Amino acid sequence: MTIFDEATAVTRRAEGRYDAMLDARFALVVPGSATPPAINGGALLATVMRAVLAESPLPHPVATSAHFLRVGAIAPAEVHVTWLKHGRTAATARAALIQDSKVVLDTTMTVGTVPGPDDAAIREPTSHAADAMAATLTWTGPPPGFPPMTECVDLGEWRGTTADDGTSGYAAQVDVLMDPATSGWRRSEPSGLPEMRGYFRLRDGQDPDPYVLALALDGLPPTVFGLGATSWAPTVEFTWHMRAVPCPGPLAIAARARHVSGGWFDEEAEAWDASGRLVAQSRQIARVGRGPLRGLVSGSAHTSQAVGLTGRS
Amino acid sequence: MTIFDEATAVTRRAEGRYDAMLDARFALVVPGSATPPAINGGALLATVMRAVLAESPLPHPVATSAHFLRVGAIAPAEVHVTWLKHGRTAATARAALIQDSKVVLDTTMTVGTVPGPDDAAIREPTSHAADAMAATLTWTGPPPGFPPMTECVDLGEWRGTTADDGTSGYAAQVDVLMDPATSGWRRSEPSGLPEMRGYFRLRDGQDPDPYVLALALDGLPPTVFGLGATSWAPTVEFTWHMRAVPCPGPLAIAARARHVSGGWFDEEAEAWDASGRLVAQSRQIARVGRGPLRGLVSGSAHTSQAVGLTGRS
Repeated sequence: MTIFDEATAVTRRAEGRYDAMLDARFALVVPGSATPPAINGGALLATVMRAVLAESPLPHPVATSAHFLRVGAIAPAEVHVTWLKHGRTAATARAALIQDSKVVLDTTMTVGTVPGPDDAAIREPTSHAADAMAATLTWTGPPPGFPPMTECVDLGEWRGTTADDGTSGYAAQVDVLMDPATSGWRRSEPSGLPEMRGYFRLRDGQDPDPYVLALALDGLPPTVFGLGATSWAPTVEFTWHMRAVPCPGPLAIAARARHVSGGWFDEEAEAWDASGRLVAQSRQIARVGRGPLRGLVSGSAHTSQAVGLTGRS
Repeated sequence: MTIFDEATAVTRRAEGRYDAMLDARFALVVPGSATPPAINGGALLATVMRAVLAESPLPHPVATSAHFLRVGAIAPAEVHVTWLKHGRTAATARAALIQDSKVVLDTTMTVGTVPGPDDAAIREPTSHAADAMAATLTWTGPPPGFPPMTECVDLGEWRGTTADDGTSGYAAQVDVLMDPATSGWRRSEPSGLPEMRGYFRLRDGQDPDPYVLALALDGLPPTVFGLGATSWAPTVEFTWHMRAVPCPGPLAIAARARHVSGGWFDEEAEAWDASGRLVAQSRQIARVGRGPLRGLVSGSAHTSQAVGLTGRS
C-alpha cells in the first residue's frame, strides 16, 4: 500500500458511514506558524472519493463537485455517503467529510465508465445502435505545450515541507517539475500570466489512478503566483472530470486562470498522461491568498506593491 | 415580472422548503414525440437558485455545482435547502429540486460577493490590510473573438419551438444570434470544431441577472453539433461561477469542448456582458445525444456516417 493510499484510506463502519484518519503526511506544514497544519484539499477529496467508490455500481468518478467549507485537521474524520440515483450510464451520490460534527468538505459525485488506456472508444453496455454510434465520436483539443522533463525546474521540497518538529507534509510526498516559463515567481520574477505547467508524480512511485488525478489537478502552485500573489490560495469549490483511465508514469498538468477580481480567481487544469492522452480536467474557484503582492517584471496585472520572497506557504 | 421570473419562481412553505411549478414555457418541445416535454436545465437551476438566494446572507452565487439526475416534468416541484456553513466571505448550502419524492437536480451553492458593474475591484467587508490587498489584484484573459451582432445568424424559433398543441417552449423565449463560423451544422456542414459562439438574450427584453446567467451559459446549441452530432445532449453535471454583476444588454457566450470520447463530452462556456466584462464561467459534462452523426466537411472528428438534418431537437 502506498503512502497516499494509506493516508486517504477509509474503513466501513456501517451503510454509508466510513471512518478516516486525516494524515500529517498530506498536511501543509508551515514552520513556526501559529496556524495548525491543514490537510491538502486533494487528499481530503481522495478520502471522500474512496468511500463513494467503495459502494459504487460503476467504476469511474466522471464528475466530482467539491465545496471546501472548513480546514481539515490532523485528526479522525467521518465520511457520510448518500446515493441519489442508480442509473445504467450514471449513478450519483452525495458525500461529506465531517470532523467535530461539522462538514469540512461537501461533495456530489456522478460515477460512470470512461475509456481505458487502450480504448479508442468505449464499448457501451448497451444494445442500442444509436448509443453505440454516439460513443464512437472522439475528438481532443490541442495539448498545452509541455517542455521535456529534462528542461523543467524541480520545485524540490519547498518551504513548508518539514515542520520544526520534523513532520514532513504534502511537499515531501510529491515531485513537481515546472515549465521554466511558469516558474519565475520562485525568483521573485512572476511572469505576468496566471499559468502553471509541470509534471506531477508521487515520490514513492505510485502510478496515477482516480485518486492521484484528483490530487494532481490541484497539485501545482496557485496560478495567481504568476501575477505576483505569494501566499496559499484556499480553494472554495473544485469540480473535476475523469475522462480516461491514465497509463503509468508522470502526469503533465497545465493550469490557467481566466479572471481574477474581488479576491476571487478561477483555475482550470488539465491532466495528460505519459502516453499523451487527456485523462482529466478540473476547474476551481479560490481566494487570492492574504500575503503581499509582488511587483511584476511584465504583464498586465495591477499590483499594489512588491514585497519579499515566500514561495508556497 | 418577466416570463422567466414567473416560470422559475418559488414560494416559501417553511424553513428550507419551497414550492415551484415547472413551466411549459421553458420546456424542450418536440413535435410529435412520444417523449414528454423536459424542462430546460437552466430553468431548473434558476428555480433552485431562487430558493437558496432567498435565504442567503451574501448576495451572489459565486459557485454553483449541479448534478442533473432525472428529467424535470411540467408539474409541481419542491426545493429543499440546507445550509452547511455561514462564513464572513462565503456561505454554502445544499439544495435539491424534487418531483415525486425523487431528486431531479442536486446542487451545492457557495455564495459570496463579486464586483458590481462599476467596481474595478470590490470593497471587501474587512478591516484586514492583507485582505484588501489581495482584493486589488485584477486580471482577465483575452476575450474570445465575437463578430458584431449584425453579422450573426439568428437561430429564430428553431425546430421544437412549438408543439402540435400550440405550446411554445424554451426556444420561443430566447433570442440566439450565432457566429456564422459556428453555425454550419444548421446547413448540415458542421465546422469540425466543437465550438459555439453567439449572443443570448430573453425575447421579452429581460436584462441579465444571476438567473439569466445560469440559463445563458448553457443556452447555445451543444458544442458537439460542430462535430456532426445532431440530437439533444443531456447535461450530467454543470458547475458555474458568477464573476461580476452583468450590465444590461445581451450576453456574448463562447463555448468549447476539449475532449469527446466514450459518449461523454465536456463543454466550457464564458459569458461576457455588453460592456465587455467577463461576468460568468461554466463547465459541464454531458452525454453525446443518441441521434445520427453527420459527416464533416473538414476537421478531425471520427464520424461513422452522415445522416439528415434535424437541428436542435
